[in-house]
Amino acid sequence: MANFNRPTTEIAHVYRGTFIHSTEQTALLILEDALLGVDTEGKIAFIGKGAERDRLSQTFGFSLSEITQLAQHEFFMPGMVDTHIHASQYSFAGTALDMPLLQWLNTYTFPVEYRFKDLEFARRVYTQVVKRTLRNGTTTACYFATIHTDASLLLGQIANDFGQRALVGKVCMDMNNSAKYYRETLQECQEETRRFIAELLSKKYPLVKPVVTPRFAPTCTDALLGQLGEIAKNNNLHIQSHISENLEEVKLVMGLFPDSQSYTHVYHRHNLLTDKTVMAHGCHLSNEELTLFRETGTSLSHCPNSNISLCSGLLNVRNVLKHKVKLGLGTDVAGGYSASMLDAVRRALDLSKILAVQDPENKALTFEEAFRLATLGGSQALSMDDHTGNFEVGKDFDALRVNVAAPGGPIDLIQHDDGPKTLFEKFLNLGDDRNIVEVFVAGRKVVPFTEPTPE
Amino acid sequence: MANFNRPTTEIAHVYRGTFIHSTEQTALLILEDALLGVDTEGKIAFIGKGAERDRLSQTFGFSLSEITQLAQHEFFMPGMVDTHIHASQYSFAGTALDMPLLQWLNTYTFPVEYRFKDLEFARRVYTQVVKRTLRNGTTTACYFATIHTDASLLLGQIANDFGQRALVGKVCMDMNNSAKYYRETLQECQEETRRFIAELLSKKYPLVKPVVTPRFAPTCTDALLGQLGEIAKNNNLHIQSHISENLEEVKLVMGLFPDSQSYTHVYHRHNLLTDKTVMAHGCHLSNEELTLFRETGTSLSHCPNSNISLCSGLLNVRNVLKHKVKLGLGTDVAGGYSASMLDAVRRALDLSKILAVQDPENKALTFEEAFRLATLGGSQALSMDDHTGNFEVGKDFDALRVNVAAPGGPIDLIQHDDGPKTLFEKFLNLGDDRNIVEVFVAGRKVVPFTEPTPE
Repeated sequence: MANFNRPTTEIAHVYRGTFIHSTEQTALLILEDALLGVDTEGKIAFIGKGAERDRLSQTFGFSLSEITQLAQHEFFMPGMVDTHIHASQYSFAGTALDMPLLQWLNTYTFPVEYRFKDLEFARRVYTQVVKRTLRNGTTTACYFATIHTDASLLLGQIANDFGQRALVGKVCMDMNNSAKYYRETLQECQEETRRFIAELLSKKYPLVKPVVTPRFAPTCTDALLGQLGEIAKNNNLHIQSHISENLEEVKLVMGLFPDSQSYTHVYHRHNLLTDKTVMAHGCHLSNEELTLFRETGTSLSHCPNSNISLCSGLLNVRNVLKHKVKLGLGTDVAGGYSASMLDAVRRALDLSKILAVQDPENKALTFEEAFRLATLGGSQALSMDDHTGNFEVGKDFDALRVNVAAPGGPIDLIQHDDGPKTLFEKFLNLGDDRNIVEVFVAGRKVVPFTEPTPE
Repeated sequence: MANFNRPTTEIAHVYRGTFIHSTEQTALLILEDALLGVDTEGKIAFIGKGAERDRLSQTFGFSLSEITQLAQHEFFMPGMVDTHIHASQYSFAGTALDMPLLQWLNTYTFPVEYRFKDLEFARRVYTQVVKRTLRNGTTTACYFATIHTDASLLLGQIANDFGQRALVGKVCMDMNNSAKYYRETLQECQEETRRFIAELLSKKYPLVKPVVTPRFAPTCTDALLGQLGEIAKNNNLHIQSHISENLEEVKLVMGLFPDSQSYTHVYHRHNLLTDKTVMAHGCHLSNEELTLFRETGTSLSHCPNSNISLCSGLLNVRNVLKHKVKLGLGTDVAGGYSASMLDAVRRALDLSKILAVQDPENKALTFEEAFRLATLGGSQALSMDDHTGNFEVGKDFDALRVNVAAPGGPIDLIQHDDGPKTLFEKFLNLGDDRNIVEVFVAGRKVVPFTEPTPE
């Protein structure tokens, strides 16, 4: 029988066809000939069987002629959640992958991020990254911007304009001896973070929120970490940072914070590990540190493309799951070269399979599990699973309309009677933005783009 | 100064712009504002500097108005060489990746290959795979078909019709206890192989040749291997097979051929290792076996997507290169899910970087080296480097015209003054068929397709 809430708002859209999503219990749930209603607030009002359409149309007051029927090779899946992406680094995505993390930051990354004091440059890059990730099916993104408050506010505005759900972080760093031109003082960090949060919240964007963003321990003093922990706590905000990406970095942190028993404890003692915290990477975390993640409700963003491309380390996803740490996937542009969450799914599978080849104890992820990490898992990692991540009644309708047989697309179908699971697997392995024919965030169609009115 | 042969044939086309290719000495050679002439036989007649155009036009007798000028974000690169692809398995590409090799063959592969006795099914799949790989920039493909002679001949015809350079193998297997419906007798193998070779050669296709194809040792008797070695030798033909893909397979082979000192020796004693042999995978070869590869001139086709997807094994490419074994890349559709050589380049880099993370002795491949493997390396692996693989004068013009800024494509350019190396690296990491705006094989433009006349 159909799931639904008692009708309180009007129905805006009704879709009929195949819906594919994940639940806590089932990594891949395929609902064939389903009927899903979206209310005028963009929330999922009901999901039931196509055969129940008469009763549902009476209960919810829509006419059968309003139903949008998906085609044979189409399905809806939840929008994907990119739990870690550096919007500012999109300008050099696909290049500069020939050195390890710390050298890579100094050589390529800091000089580029520094350019974001120029708001026109920022507007160009941020518009491209928001449009590109939306086209790629990222309905929710957790962004690092740069240290520049106004450019970071602009990223928030652009995400809002294009209708993407986003957490936006103005980056904080008060230590950077290797690139002194790119840092703030402790006081600037504090004041600008407060200004960033206040101004972004004052816009009342429905889907875009600030996230407290210490870059990572090597560029933050104890004093800064402490203040950011306090700001987050006092405003009940999300927190994001990096942890244990690369062994050289881990060693550096242990040298900078000699009285801390682990990298994780550096953040923990400043109240930066909360159930609204997402930490990127974690390749080299010990089991004790993973336990602390679970106990504090802190999540991990697994960024396999980046970890491979920069030769950072190989996260054992199976071990993270065993420790019941909340886990999402991230593209980590531009350490990861691809701004597509489909790439993150594929690379997570690859890495997991490679670890399984080397040690069968590391049971490889299934494609169903990788899909869940990119959708429901990501929403959990960002503590947003109460309103996105799958097709539960009451959640926002964040969805991709996928046409596996999109003309001119990357997928050839030989068997025209392939079932939905086969079509879905082909899309996951071979599909791209050409297959993602429509993208919805909170019920609003955001792809194809309607060109924003000229400013 | 320009390189050229003394003009003997007329010039058909002249292109001016950036040309990027590999040589034995240099993995990535970028020629800016170069001028390349293709003669009426499809061969590269000269390559020089744009500034030399007046002299070259006099020497070769073309007018300056005939020069095709590439746009700012365009370049030419050599067509890519897929050294191992199962054309018949394209029908399930992107699915069925959840079990190891031997079970995968029995469960998914043999039942599908069996269907190729139906010529209409074969025509549908083979047309799709030839078109898809051409669009993806594969100008040369080394194909496994199935055991069916007529369907294999049809694959040769389709490759010829669309203008792809191809080796086509009718698969031979006279043992297959786990799928008895899909094998031939020793006599059938021999007779049908002879018929396949004779009929394919009788067509006199300029670019499509037969390749002797024992599937792999576990499905071939000693008698069959011996006969195929002889057929190849008597007709001076190419040979392809699989070797040492998965540990279970290696164990099986050592059990089936107990008097052979290694998997490599099983082939070697039947004269199947020659300088026209390409063996797929080789993940688990010993250094002694690699040495035998080098001594016999046998090459390896590295298929990283497949090796990862089926959890087969992790080829140490650096070690293969150290042993000076000829090496190309293969998609190995459908153990590899992608029919794109760009994917093979990326996965080869990934795997090499992962092995480098685990042991810095395994120096990671550079993207320049991976590019060379996909072009010049592949042509060497197929012993075709005398007429394809790079832009040397006298070779056939097998080339991709790449537009990094193709409208609606996957790449965003922020800096409009990016140099050609940056553009090239973006294409290699992020590009797809949308960026490959034209494909040439032996001078003939084969993409965009000119629809073949109806039969």
